[in-house]
Amino acid sequence: MSDKAAPPTENSTYWPINSSSTPRFAGLVSFFRLPTMTDPSAVDIALVGLPWDGGTTNRAGTRHGPREVRTQSTLLRPYHHVTRTSPYEHCRVADLGDAPVNPLDITDTLRQLEAHYATLHGAGAVPITAGGDHLITLPILRALAKDGPVGLIQFDAHADVNDSYFGGQRYSHGTHVRRAIEEGLVDPKRTVQIGIRGTRYSPDGEDFSAEHGIRTINIEEVFSLGTKGVIEEIRRVVGSAPTYLTFDVDGIDPAFTPGTGTPEVGGYSVFEAQQMVRGLAGLDIIGGDVVEVSPPFDPSGVTALVGATMMFEILCVTAQATVARKEKLRR
Amino acid sequence: MSDKAAPPTENSTYWPINSSSTPRFAGLVSFFRLPTMTDPSAVDIALVGLPWDGGTTNRAGTRHGPREVRTQSTLLRPYHHVTRTSPYEHCRVADLGDAPVNPLDITDTLRQLEAHYATLHGAGAVPITAGGDHLITLPILRALAKDGPVGLIQFDAHADVNDSYFGGQRYSHGTHVRRAIEEGLVDPKRTVQIGIRGTRYSPDGEDFSAEHGIRTINIEEVFSLGTKGVIEEIRRVVGSAPTYLTFDVDGIDPAFTPGTGTPEVGGYSVFEAQQMVRGLAGLDIIGGDVVEVSPPFDPSGVTALVGATMMFEILCVTAQATVARKEKLRR
Amino acid sequence: MSDKAAPPTENSTYWPINSSSTPRFAGLVSFFRLPTMTDPSAVDIALVGLPWDGGTTNRAGTRHGPREVRTQSTLLRPYHHVTRTSPYEHCRVADLGDAPVNPLDITDTLRQLEAHYATLHGAGAVPITAGGDHLITLPILRALAKDGPVGLIQFDAHADVNDSYFGGQRYSHGTHVRRAIEEGLVDPKRTVQIGIRGTRYSPDGEDFSAEHGIRTINIEEVFSLGTKGVIEEIRRVVGSAPTYLTFDVDGIDPAFTPGTGTPEVGGYSVFEAQQMVRGLAGLDIIGGDVVEVSPPFDPSGVTALVGATMMFEILCVTAQATVARKEKLRR
Amino acid sequence: MSDKAAPPTENSTYWPINSSSTPRFAGLVSFFRLPTMTDPSAVDIALVGLPWDGGTTNRAGTRHGPREVRTQSTLLRPYHHVTRTSPYEHCRVADLGDAPVNPLDITDTLRQLEAHYATLHGAGAVPITAGGDHLITLPILRALAKDGPVGLIQFDAHADVNDSYFGGQRYSHGTHVRRAIEEGLVDPKRTVQIGIRGTRYSPDGEDFSAEHGIRTINIEEVFSLGTKGVIEEIRRVVGSAPTYLTFDVDGIDPAFTPGTGTPEVGGYSVFEAQQMVRGLAGLDIIGGDVVEVSPPFDPSGVTALVGATMMFEILCVTAQATVARKEKLRR
Amino acid sequence: MSDKAAPPTENSTYWPINSSSTPRFAGLVSFFRLPTMTDPSAVDIALVGLPWDGGTTNRAGTRHGPREVRTQSTLLRPYHHVTRTSPYEHCRVADLGDAPVNPLDITDTLRQLEAHYATLHGAGAVPITAGGDHLITLPILRALAKDGPVGLIQFDAHADVNDSYFGGQRYSHGTHVRRAIEEGLVDPKRTVQIGIRGTRYSPDGEDFSAEHGIRTINIEEVFSLGTKGVIEEIRRVVGSAPTYLTFDVDGIDPAFTPGTGTPEVGGYSVFEAQQMVRGLAGLDIIGGDVVEVSPPFDPSGVTALVGATMMFEILCVTAQATVARKEKLRR
Amino acid sequence: MSDKAAPPTENSTYWPINSSSTPRFAGLVSFFRLPTMTDPSAVDIALVGLPWDGGTTNRAGTRHGPREVRTQSTLLRPYHHVTRTSPYEHCRVADLGDAPVNPLDITDTLRQLEAHYATLHGAGAVPITAGGDHLITLPILRALAKDGPVGLIQFDAHADVNDSYFGGQRYSHGTHVRRAIEEGLVDPKRTVQIGIRGTRYSPDGEDFSAEHGIRTINIEEVFSLGTKGVIEEIRRVVGSAPTYLTFDVDGIDPAFTPGTGTPEVGGYSVFEAQQMVRGLAGLDIIGGDVVEVSPPFDPSGVTALVGATMMFEILCVTAQATVARKEKLRR
Repeated sequence: MSDKAAPPTENSTYWPINSSSTPRFAGLVSFFRLPTMTDPSAVDIALVGLPWDGGTTNRAGTRHGPREVRTQSTLLRPYHHVTRTSPYEHCRVADLGDAPVNPLDITDTLRQLEAHYATLHGAGAVPITAGGDHLITLPILRALAKDGPVGLIQFDAHADVNDSYFGGQRYSHGTHVRRAIEEGLVDPKRTVQIGIRGTRYSPDGEDFSAEHGIRTINIEEVFSLGTKGVIEEIRRVVGSAPTYLTFDVDGIDPAFTPGTGTPEVGGYSVFEAQQMVRGLAGLDIIGGDVVEVSPPFDPSGVTALVGATMMFEILCVTAQATVARKEKLRR
Repeated sequence: MSDKAAPPTENSTYWPINSSSTPRFAGLVSFFRLPTMTDPSAVDIALVGLPWDGGTTNRAGTRHGPREVRTQSTLLRPYHHVTRTSPYEHCRVADLGDAPVNPLDITDTLRQLEAHYATLHGAGAVPITAGGDHLITLPILRALAKDGPVGLIQFDAHADVNDSYFGGQRYSHGTHVRRAIEEGLVDPKRTVQIGIRGTRYSPDGEDFSAEHGIRTINIEEVFSLGTKGVIEEIRRVVGSAPTYLTFDVDGIDPAFTPGTGTPEVGGYSVFEAQQMVRGLAGLDIIGGDVVEVSPPFDPSGVTALVGATMMFEILCVTAQATVARKEKLRR
Repeated sequence: MSDKAAPPTENSTYWPINSSSTPRFAGLVSFFRLPTMTDPSAVDIALVGLPWDGGTTNRAGTRHGPREVRTQSTLLRPYHHVTRTSPYEHCRVADLGDAPVNPLDITDTLRQLEAHYATLHGAGAVPITAGGDHLITLPILRALAKDGPVGLIQFDAHADVNDSYFGGQRYSHGTHVRRAIEEGLVDPKRTVQIGIRGTRYSPDGEDFSAEHGIRTINIEEVFSLGTKGVIEEIRRVVGSAPTYLTFDVDGIDPAFTPGTGTPEVGGYSVFEAQQMVRGLAGLDIIGGDVVEVSPPFDPSGVTALVGATMMFEILCVTAQATVARKEKLRR
Repeated sequence: MSDKAAPPTENSTYWPINSSSTPRFAGLVSFFRLPTMTDPSAVDIALVGLPWDGGTTNRAGTRHGPREVRTQSTLLRPYHHVTRTSPYEHCRVADLGDAPVNPLDITDTLRQLEAHYATLHGAGAVPITAGGDHLITLPILRALAKDGPVGLIQFDAHADVNDSYFGGQRYSHGTHVRRAIEEGLVDPKRTVQIGIRGTRYSPDGEDFSAEHGIRTINIEEVFSLGTKGVIEEIRRVVGSAPTYLTFDVDGIDPAFTPGTGTPEVGGYSVFEAQQMVRGLAGLDIIGGDVVEVSPPFDPSGVTALVGATMMFEILCVTAQATVARKEKLRR
Repeated sequence: MSDKAAPPTENSTYWPINSSSTPRFAGLVSFFRLPTMTDPSAVDIALVGLPWDGGTTNRAGTRHGPREVRTQSTLLRPYHHVTRTSPYEHCRVADLGDAPVNPLDITDTLRQLEAHYATLHGAGAVPITAGGDHLITLPILRALAKDGPVGLIQFDAHADVNDSYFGGQRYSHGTHVRRAIEEGLVDPKRTVQIGIRGTRYSPDGEDFSAEHGIRTINIEEVFSLGTKGVIEEIRRVVGSAPTYLTFDVDGIDPAFTPGTGTPEVGGYSVFEAQQMVRGLAGLDIIGGDVVEVSPPFDPSGVTALVGATMMFEILCVTAQATVARKEKLRR
Repeated sequence: MSDKAAPPTENSTYWPINSSSTPRFAGLVSFFRLPTMTDPSAVDIALVGLPWDGGTTNRAGTRHGPREVRTQSTLLRPYHHVTRTSPYEHCRVADLGDAPVNPLDITDTLRQLEAHYATLHGAGAVPITAGGDHLITLPILRALAKDGPVGLIQFDAHADVNDSYFGGQRYSHGTHVRRAIEEGLVDPKRTVQIGIRGTRYSPDGEDFSAEHGIRTINIEEVFSLGTKGVIEEIRRVVGSAPTYLTFDVDGIDPAFTPGTGTPEVGGYSVFEAQQMVRGLAGLDIIGGDVVEVSPPFDPSGVTALVGATMMFEILCVTAQATVARKEKLRR
């Protein structure tokens, strides 16, 4: 008898191990218990680990994030309980292993990562990444946005638009959005940030955002708009053009995600985060990431479980977008 | 001077140790610091520990649940702050110790448990149990529902209506509700499940529920109805006939209850859970349980405290029902 | 180049170390990375640690609270993201070190603390304290309310109006509000308690409160009023006269603040707490404290971070009040 | 069938629950799973919990020690693997519950404890206590040494002969040995301390000890003598007269016992501690204690397990002494 | 450039990922970063995970052992620092994944495991297993000892020769050695147990061992013989015939291995364990296992690291034996 | 009354806060509760924190080391119990705060650190540093060894003589000893490494050491020589010329120091480490460090306590050497 859950006819290779046959605690670990592969042309969507915390300004540890997100992802089953469908029914999805990093060299790492994601992109694989600190979004965007700026949906407590740290270091997990805009990878007018809050270095902390037309939805506005209102606003800002989705787990309140490097109290709940990501169905998502899961600060493992679950929600909307793009091409 | 809080005249034996006289950290531990007893006929309500995790498909540990729930229950005092009454004023309540289990044999355990609860039931003691994994509800129902199917109120993230696991094992903490319905212990049309969510093995994960008329309130519906709406719906479904109440702590969001075996992010809060249980006042509750507290995954002990508090809320509504049944008999 | 963030001209000595120059994990620790001082006349607002748990009836550990709150406070930056101003722009604020305690003698400690705060008060420094257990509010009030009773805003799960514990001990973290009222330090008619809940020793647990006219806002009422309604009610009760603000972290749900001595499940969120404290802007706050952070029960450190953040929120409204009082005097 | 292990004929009531019949994680918790009793005249040896940390100068938490030592003691079985005998074969041993304490008042606690142990002693019960901080040895000695000073065997990293703390407080867990000598409870010439080490307040830290003739075996001497040499020296010092045995878990290296209030690195191993206690067989032990187990600092529970095991070793030599005293009386 | 450390010519496929090229925290996890394979005939030595704790009588959790041992094994490099050789130079070694288990059925699991190991054995792969509770040694021996009883070297705190638990259950982690002898899988006269200690159910706890001629080296004898003496004794007992090596981490003191289900204080150190296993070089080891690593009780992960390191030591002596057997066949 | 312990006449400013007056948990934290200073010319010995883990190849976290070592160092008192003297009696010792680092740039950090230590050295302050990962020893040596190579005593599990990591990175915590020798900072013939063990990347892992004449004392030799033999060998190798002492806590067994980045099981005990460091009295120690304490992996804090205690032992021998050098100059 097969160890795979009854698969749809056309995608049988790309299906998770069935946890009602093989216990979740058994076997080698991969994202969602999917098969591991190395050839990006064999998948529609590539799940990638990115074990990196070299851009972290305070508490390190996100280098251990992908491993623990993979472990907790064994708790997830193939079908979404609201949409009643599975991304694996529609796309070829697999675990492509970890992206290459050099823990002793930021520059070398940014170079290697850009090349790695360019290869994935070139092969037609849509990447969904488990970080890693938030700096990783920059080299991913460098690979994905080569043909022009994309929209950006950023769930986060922090705007990440600082200019530099520690006497001029321009590459960190607090500067990458500014860099991405400066480099023309992201269209600031199609950029929306959800959950921004917390103390700031200066009263004009959002000047860069305001000057460039980023739509900042502070946590206070998140709660006053409600998740439906936020979804409408996100859709209005990014429109139907290609958009990247980045999910920093510190956008969520640290009661739900204590294991992160720069926690800011007073965020939204995981349920609210789930609603907001689900509300992105139909947008042209070209890739996504879940970042800043830091296992050394996550004694009960719930942060990694949140990370894995949000990664699945992102996978679901990305699979839909991937199918839509394929159909469009076909026509 | 007595070490007991000033008790009502008729129930003085059945009163907790007073924590403003004897510190909470002192003394031998029992549920709510109540007296321990062995004769079920001496109580109206029997608090029972059930240290069992042999039906667990993923992370074990709930065998240690009763001990830690007892420990955390020392934080609770006799009176409810909303109803301003105490269950100990109205009923004889005591800690009846732990039910018998065989950690190496599911079949033997199910048999022993059914016999144990049959003895309690036969002696007129209404059982409220601290588990243990969710499989334990099955033998309890076998003992309580001998005269016909009862209603079931289930707070849970999972429907627990799978048919089998691991090549045909029919008894686990994910199959017991299906078994209870198949065995005629529970009336599916008087069954309501609150908080169902999370990924599924198949798109038709709820077919069994739908076919049998179980009322499934997904987490999305919980939030759209609000706790008042949920309460109304529960009351409508179970009506005034005898009903069993089972509370799986994984119905609550793991931010509140990280220490559980199969966490699903995106649940309700403890406050919402409290409101919903309180809203069951007046129903004919014939017993209840709090299950799936797993201390090895609960580094700060909050899950066990939630378990103890929900057990107290269940005790309050059960005491009211017990008094009502007695009065009815008297008339 | 200066290691301080660009400071306003007049307060440059009283400015935090800039975490974008010197990493948060580096250097000696003080509240919010502010300078440490010993002369209270050199500050407008004195941040004080109070490492004491000798009044604790259950789980000790808050003696370690100030140290960990200081550590987590290094995560905070100078400016508030909603008001877009910094308390350090308007007031001279510094870390005045820890208040003196005698861990083996409550009476001696109460005496030393009253003298210490009288010195601060006499020098014109408004104290904001990180506890320590809640008993500490009593000696602080003895020092601050020498000229007549003040108003009291108390965020808490417990009313703390018990008469005594353990055979007549009148000084504990569960009796101090009663003592403060009996001693005429606090005007009960200008006292409001927000978030009261949990089981009680007697049905008439609130009789003292009711008899003396304390405004008790149970957690149920907090949620039915909403944070705006609660703010209005607080402002109505305390009015414009001098008022002390005490914030027990157990008012918040233990999902957010597990590291506390007497957790009561079912509280408000940190976001709601932040809203409520911000809503006190304009009141005549004469001092405040954050109490009951207990690091030994806080494995991920989030409770101390909540404590530090709430301390910053209190600092912001207190700075505003301090400026207002100065301006009033000037006129 | 009985739930007790096959007991010797005469002591069947005083026998632990059999863990090969009832799992260790099941049932209400008592020391070594022995019966709980309240009448001291019904036992030869009384196992007592003493939940107290009011004499602690640094990290509190030993108030939770007895509860956790009881929990871990469920791992122990009736027979000693070296002597191949059981204390329960020779003496009536039971769990007498916790001694009374007042966490808010040292003086009241010392008074209550002395009275409690005087009652035990008067009833002929030899007490073996699980603390609690080390101050508790003082009131126990006050009760046991009423007829003249006894010998003292102290396993400890600290001599505990300081005069006072914090401006004159004479009762703490660092002063009790000095008090006991001053009060004539302990004969300093029949006192031996094993494992003393660590930094000191003054170069003459041992002057009190030296002046009074205490035999101090520093950790360096422990290792140079070896456990056999230490045993000989202990036996030489205390001789055959009545002797009390106090075991502070901080005498052991904190690798083995991290969960304690004042750890000093560089101690002996648990195996060495076991050998040394076993070597006391034949001495006239009149009581003993295991102190300074602090669960909040013991994340894996090993310290409490060490505490429980050392308590069992002490029980074994005390049972032998108790039998010897009885036989002597009989003759 | 290759991501593999410079491999010896003939075994290049069977070489670990080089941690000085690819960081240890990166990439998919396997034992020692070796390749994963499914065909047992392609290896000389099969590393196998066995995620099972269904035979556990007290604290469960070893079902999570293989996953965490694999994770910690990424810390190990190819060469042994004393022998200056690598097992990978001499044998084809790979990670064969996890053996099949049914967490809800002991009988089914024993059957599946025996079949699985019979397949490995039949294909000529020598199995080294990371458990899992100690019951797993029984089905492994059933597969390996089909041609007659083998010798057994058992590092352990417990003899595991009980007859049954919980009313007649004959298969548990405390009975498997007795079963193996009864079934003729193990020659008791060629069986040696090292480190036995701790309390017992009866004074005659070792009668079975004594009657059957098992050589029991109690912990006291381990320390009096010294590791060299123990090694000599082991070699004398098992001789040159085929011998299985089972290593229960609870033989080591719980200071080194807190994360285990049935800790017994007072064991040997890891260094001593390493010496003893290294001393087995030259024996005809036909397989081995490391059991009872329980991650939920191992907050710092050191137990799993000890497990991984001991597994490597066992691999080294097994590789030597495997080469010797091959050479013997060749001649 | 002074809050300082009775100081010797000439050094009263440089004396720790007295923990028998001010509790250890109170007050701002500095090394050993010594005064904090910024002027290196005001001290003989400068205690320095160095919060850096940018050279770490596996688990980060030592950036948090200095803070936690300071916290645990509050447990230490002024006098050594064996020498019965205090370093503060003989030298002016203070906490000079943290050295400057740039967590995003290794090169910049190495430059800043060299300059910082050059300043300390130039001012005549002997530095004793709490790291930080082991790379920090390199810039310290660059500052201290400007006039020619010094001797090196290295307690460590690893030789740290690798050439590079991750494609040519020459600066890491595994390469610094090689760099120091290549740069002529350290005389390899006056270099001794104690406790080397664990698996290796190649069979010739010690070739660099052997070729350059480093004296490697593997852990096996440590145990065969005994601590006295090791001390003799260290003294023989380094002789009476200036020598730097570096103490990596991973030289100790991880049972004692779990909180470190690259644990290797099977090391020496803390007691043995203390003996070996004490045995260096009389050598010309010109500075020292304690490195690789990683708080995120140290749940019970014992590793930081070991770090603080070893730092004190190093301080004691360094103070003696400092006095000797002064006396020599005076003559």
